Amino acid sequence: MRPFTNLIPFEEARKIVIENVKPIEDVEEVPLLDALHRVLAEDIVAPINVPPFPRAAEDGYAVRAEDTYGAGQYNPRELRLVGEVNTGEYKEIKIKKGECIKIATGAMIPKGADAVVRVEDTEEESGIVRIFRPVHPGFDIAPEGEDIKVGDNVLHRGIYLDPPKIGVLAALGISKVKVYRKPRIAVLPSGNELIVPGEEIQPGKIYDVNTYTISSVIKENGGEPVIFPFVMDDIEDIDRKLKEALKYDMVVFSGGSSVGDRDLLIDVVSRYAEILFHGVQIKPGKPTWCARGDKLIFGMPGFPTSCLNDSYQFLAPAVRKMARLPSLQERIVKAKMARRITSTLGRMQFFTVRLKDGYAHPAYKTSGAITSMADSDGYIIIPANSDLVEKDEEVEVHLWR
Amino acid sequence: MRPFTNLIPFEEARKIVIENVKPIEDVEEVPLLDALHRVLAEDIVAPINVPPFPRAAEDGYAVRAEDTYGAGQYNPRELRLVGEVNTGEYKEIKIKKGECIKIATGAMIPKGADAVVRVEDTEEESGIVRIFRPVHPGFDIAPEGEDIKVGDNVLHRGIYLDPPKIGVLAALGISKVKVYRKPRIAVLPSGNELIVPGEEIQPGKIYDVNTYTISSVIKENGGEPVIFPFVMDDIEDIDRKLKEALKYDMVVFSGGSSVGDRDLLIDVVSRYAEILFHGVQIKPGKPTWCARGDKLIFGMPGFPTSCLNDSYQFLAPAVRKMARLPSLQERIVKAKMARRITSTLGRMQFFTVRLKDGYAHPAYKTSGAITSMADSDGYIIIPANSDLVEKDEEVEVHLWR
Repeated sequence: MRPFTNLIPFEEARKIVIENVKPIEDVEEVPLLDALHRVLAEDIVAPINVPPFPRAAEDGYAVRAEDTYGAGQYNPRELRLVGEVNTGEYKEIKIKKGECIKIATGAMIPKGADAVVRVEDTEEESGIVRIFRPVHPGFDIAPEGEDIKVGDNVLHRGIYLDPPKIGVLAALGISKVKVYRKPRIAVLPSGNELIVPGEEIQPGKIYDVNTYTISSVIKENGGEPVIFPFVMDDIEDIDRKLKEALKYDMVVFSGGSSVGDRDLLIDVVSRYAEILFHGVQIKPGKPTWCARGDKLIFGMPGFPTSCLNDSYQFLAPAVRKMARLPSLQERIVKAKMARRITSTLGRMQFFTVRLKDGYAHPAYKTSGAITSMADSDGYIIIPANSDLVEKDEEVEVHLWR
Repeated sequence: MRPFTNLIPFEEARKIVIENVKPIEDVEEVPLLDALHRVLAEDIVAPINVPPFPRAAEDGYAVRAEDTYGAGQYNPRELRLVGEVNTGEYKEIKIKKGECIKIATGAMIPKGADAVVRVEDTEEESGIVRIFRPVHPGFDIAPEGEDIKVGDNVLHRGIYLDPPKIGVLAALGISKVKVYRKPRIAVLPSGNELIVPGEEIQPGKIYDVNTYTISSVIKENGGEPVIFPFVMDDIEDIDRKLKEALKYDMVVFSGGSSVGDRDLLIDVVSRYAEILFHGVQIKPGKPTWCARGDKLIFGMPGFPTSCLNDSYQFLAPAVRKMARLPSLQERIVKAKMARRITSTLGRMQFFTVRLKDGYAHPAYKTSGAITSMADSDGYIIIPANSDLVEKDEEVEVHLWR
């Protein structure tokens, strides 16, 4: 049985992972609404002005501004009503001196007009409109291209498409857009003890948890999990599945990463890839490894909490970088420790806690217990050089969401 | 043309909206991984113990603890090796006094054994294992049900399914789970001026933006948009589409909500629903209305920024409540205003800004400009009783994400 020879610190391990991730280059075209929360893979140059014509910003009358000069509450200017333009209509009319046209918000300003008088500043009677307030040229007109000008480089390759950006694309009349393909990540649970949820349990076996937690973390960080059948503790089976898995953008094993004499996984991986690290100074998650061949290959521990914590700490930022998504913003709250807890010197511990009334209550059971995570609101970090958090000590709780 | 008679304050409008939303009762069963980010619609009672048997927490030897008492570095106890249990194996063996069994992490503890001695505290030679360290009963054994006990009410109806919760379901062998159906929300853009993105632009027309921004906000808050064809400014067309839309869980109109004499929408809606408010003291978004019949009906303004701001402020929390999702946690940062800006007295303004070097730079153009939102990082709130923010004044920026 091999000991872990070189445990490396957490920050170093994370740095190695991130540095070895290559963002996806492949591009796919998707309908506009499917582009939400994806990353734009093209520069968008505005093909039209937005708005595409000068339009009325209010309901009222399109006028020549100079025809309104001198108008007042007791001294209206009178203009002849020569037509009406509704929103969405196009009319070949032109107003001349002393004329006006009734216009709705958003309707195209007719030729000859250079301002809009709001309806509340007017009175219409028998084809004559009395104007009670003067307006300057441009008043209540949204000029053509006010929002976006034709030829503007409005959205750049690499930006994250949130609802406002989707709105910009719609405004330009764009119905399909190029985005980066989602990274497809091979998920390979390993271990002879695993059974697929839904099947009947057998003596000595346990249900596979890691496939579902790893895949969930991949999904919520913009990737697509590709789930493999269980990898057996058998060199040929490992070799065959690894070769198949290397067709995807990244490979994640779970289980079989410890130092027991039946842990064949890392030996087989070494044939195809350089081991970047094996063993990290963290708890849970010590037996984590990472290798790099054509693709990045992760080895997560089999214990569900170790595996899920690794997924959050290493896999999530790796998938986001690959998917070109902005980094996840952590949410941290302060709390007081509800009771004294002890940790392991020499390993940074992610200790899960539940928040209640401003206190952080220990939720951590063992690294084998998925409820260590599921029954918690987040975790505190106990540094490698500390083995104790006192009751009532102030701690920073990193929330799961 | 009708004036707005009763503008109500923002907080009151939002309260009315939230109070009138009914959470979805319909339930659907989905495969485990599809349940990620959904809301559980059943109580989960553990059908099995997790782990389902006592298992070794480390690689080593399963022993009777009392056979190790008194062992020391220079005074080993010798035990007879009578077998081996690997992970995932089930063996009908029982150890007796003076015997031990080689065991792998996660493997089932054989009958008769009550502790595990770690491999590093042993030496194996010719069928004899020397034990250099005494262990107490239970040492390095994860007892049956340590994580979850059969019959435990582990997950409650109404909880949000994040990766750790998905892990718990997997650990219990659950492959399909009941979740609340996503709210289906009818999206009805209205206005004769609209053209679908991808089609050719016509004089006097503009591309429909609101369908895409409203639908995006619905999607990112756990709803499913159901997009309708454009509603024409025509009583019969409005009536027909409204009746069809009322088959869904909520209805969102955009456009046609102002006070122009061609705004027929609210008249038709009044036939089926009580108008809860019409006009809110906000900018952008003043002409927003909300009605309640069998379903909640929103009227968002046609201007893209007004409509999108309304979608964030009213629609997002409404959809989340309907979908039973936890409320969105706002992210707020402090910044200094880069230049003096003025606002409108009597209306609370959501003024969009771009952040740069700790300064909030105005991004707001007009409520008709989608770039007011798309070119911003978030917004500041200028209260209704204030019409000015001074240069260098500290402001709180509500980030879009």
